[in-house]
Amino acid sequence: MSDSITQAVVDKAVRARDASRKLAYLSTSVKNEALAAMAQALIDEAPVILEANAKDIAAGEARGLSKALLDRLLLNEARIRDMAGGLDVIINLPDPVGEVFDMVTRPNGLQVGKMRVPLGVIGMIYEARPNVTVDAAGLCLKAGNAVLLRGGTEAIHSNTTIARIIAAAAAAAGIPEGAIEFIELTDRAAVNTMLKLNDYLDVVIPRGGKALKQAVIANATVPVIETGMGNCHVFVDREADLEMAARIVINAKCQRPGVCNAAETLLVDAPVAAAFLPGILEQLKERGVEIRGCPRTRELAPWVVPATDEDWDTEYLDLILAVRVVDGLEEAVDHIFRWGTKHSEAIVTENYTRARRFLREVDAAAVYVNASTRFTDGGVFGFGAELGISTQKLHARGPMGLKDLTSTKYIIFGDGQTR
Amino acid sequence: MSDSITQAVVDKAVRARDASRKLAYLSTSVKNEALAAMAQALIDEAPVILEANAKDIAAGEARGLSKALLDRLLLNEARIRDMAGGLDVIINLPDPVGEVFDMVTRPNGLQVGKMRVPLGVIGMIYEARPNVTVDAAGLCLKAGNAVLLRGGTEAIHSNTTIARIIAAAAAAAGIPEGAIEFIELTDRAAVNTMLKLNDYLDVVIPRGGKALKQAVIANATVPVIETGMGNCHVFVDREADLEMAARIVINAKCQRPGVCNAAETLLVDAPVAAAFLPGILEQLKERGVEIRGCPRTRELAPWVVPATDEDWDTEYLDLILAVRVVDGLEEAVDHIFRWGTKHSEAIVTENYTRARRFLREVDAAAVYVNASTRFTDGGVFGFGAELGISTQKLHARGPMGLKDLTSTKYIIFGDGQTR
Repeated sequence: MSDSITQAVVDKAVRARDASRKLAYLSTSVKNEALAAMAQALIDEAPVILEANAKDIAAGEARGLSKALLDRLLLNEARIRDMAGGLDVIINLPDPVGEVFDMVTRPNGLQVGKMRVPLGVIGMIYEARPNVTVDAAGLCLKAGNAVLLRGGTEAIHSNTTIARIIAAAAAAAGIPEGAIEFIELTDRAAVNTMLKLNDYLDVVIPRGGKALKQAVIANATVPVIETGMGNCHVFVDREADLEMAARIVINAKCQRPGVCNAAETLLVDAPVAAAFLPGILEQLKERGVEIRGCPRTRELAPWVVPATDEDWDTEYLDLILAVRVVDGLEEAVDHIFRWGTKHSEAIVTENYTRARRFLREVDAAAVYVNASTRFTDGGVFGFGAELGISTQKLHARGPMGLKDLTSTKYIIFGDGQTR
Repeated sequence: MSDSITQAVVDKAVRARDASRKLAYLSTSVKNEALAAMAQALIDEAPVILEANAKDIAAGEARGLSKALLDRLLLNEARIRDMAGGLDVIINLPDPVGEVFDMVTRPNGLQVGKMRVPLGVIGMIYEARPNVTVDAAGLCLKAGNAVLLRGGTEAIHSNTTIARIIAAAAAAAGIPEGAIEFIELTDRAAVNTMLKLNDYLDVVIPRGGKALKQAVIANATVPVIETGMGNCHVFVDREADLEMAARIVINAKCQRPGVCNAAETLLVDAPVAAAFLPGILEQLKERGVEIRGCPRTRELAPWVVPATDEDWDTEYLDLILAVRVVDGLEEAVDHIFRWGTKHSEAIVTENYTRARRFLREVDAAAVYVNASTRFTDGGVFGFGAELGISTQKLHARGPMGLKDLTSTKYIIFGDGQTR
């Protein structure tokens, strides 16, 4: 049983790897035509997709999934059009592959430079949302990579159908068979096999909850790009424009609390705590935010629930905010170093030196002065689309665009040089 | 026992991580002064280093190490001066940290750009040569990283002494304590602990033989950068300048056979096999090279030993060359895809289209037209120094210079923007 799962996964990985060799140097126009065909196929076959999706929804209801989770699973005509539209966006992005740069001529006459090349085969392991199937396949294809997709059990019917439709459309448009492979096996052994396929996969990217990411990191021998955990902070400095600070805090917490770039902890510099906290906490409360505060916060707003270390450590992804009064920038930076997940961190200040220090001293994928943490996003940063937000330092950091799905190789032009 | 080893390693890693926070934004001049002090300390304390080295040599002789290995271990005044000179080279390299690039202004007025930052804490696991201790510490320091070093048993006295001397010199010159940590424990448990320290180490780089690298990849949960296996090929195309081809083949095989960028297999296009092979094989034989050939090679040179699949798969690191006659570029590229280690690959040809195809279709860290594979080296490529040659595609590929020891973070300047 487990052996046959392993074999099925390896077979798909081998097909993906073989496809990746030709994909690596397909012209941009062939790739773009395939992306357009994939988008069209999604529209044309919407009824088939909706039928598969209905099975996932029915199974989810039977299993008692939450309303929020069922909504993430649900597809309709509009959402299918959005998925197709995402592929159109990718068509319009510049193709990163083949770029030659840093070319120098060495004293012995050798010309040495770098050429941007695809990573090869990318393994994607993800959870509920079926649109990830389309986004990941589209981005990987545009960057010349084959992709081995493994979606979650909840969306298995939707994902299998979507993957079949876009893979067929791509193949019909001249993309090598195997470029988009989907693993329909929901058995955990399938993932564990994937994580060890160093001969076939160049990287594995997990997208989903903490448990998924930790399992991938613990078990993978294939290189991993970690994405997404965001325990983000807003620090309101003693010289902040307090009105601006209030706008930023409310936006960072309330505009979309369920995403990784939402703020989870507010740090307030002691000298402005009395002027700032009572007002902003009332405003947040009115917006339905539960506040958990340190003792100094509770002196100013006695109705606030006491915060524990667990609060500093938690990515709520909900309308809850931890609040702490700190004595200056250094204590704020230390708090972020101790509890943060190196995702997105903001300072609100009018002070030049402390703005510069915060930018330099806070180690995170995105560090902001006077703006909401909610902007950490591939679209907002101008990449058009993203495959997730890397929170590690190796290879890619922050929103991952097409370039982050590539590697380089040195190319060397000689005239018979020897050493 | 094993618990106390784990604790000792964790303690060092914590010190390194704490040091890395301040190291990240030390000025270039402080780092350069520390590098100069480290170089001077090596010269000043040469007698102490030589005394320690004598213990390693004595232990190695007692254990019956080969002459070659003993020579790699051996230090003398000249070699210590070379190590110090390596640090002087690093002083003269530009500091990559703090560079701000790709800054754009988004439609909402946000300025978004990237700042180059250190990786953080780098774990180095290496084998015999004591100079790696100095090179790695110097390169990591210049790029603002703390380093946790773990050298091999053979050089343990030399490495412990060298690490103590340079760490003390660095600290005296204003570098935070913990920036250069060396693990003196030769127990294997020390390495296994290191490989799981995801909270403290940002990357682990193994430098050494195949067994070391495979063990690291199999056991690490910390991200790894693979270095160095080189099963490199020279392909002599039907339109090669055969005199140039002979020079390149001899250089790639014989100039320094024990290194990873030496050629291990010669592929010859069938139309020129008869004109090229008998002569070059004689020349190689005269230089003491043992030849193992495919059947078509042996038709042209019956004295050649038959090659097996194991020969195509082997990095000899010795005066042995596998030789195969192939039918054209495609078969050569397929052979390299099947057996190569994606290190350094060369074509010799005067044909424009096949030169371009080889560059594009061969997937390796360095792909050459009309030059010896021996050039894959940080110094030759103009980086001044290297920390190894990456053969993976994630993060760094080819010779790793200072820039490859850095990451980036997004920095965002706002005026109160919210989403």
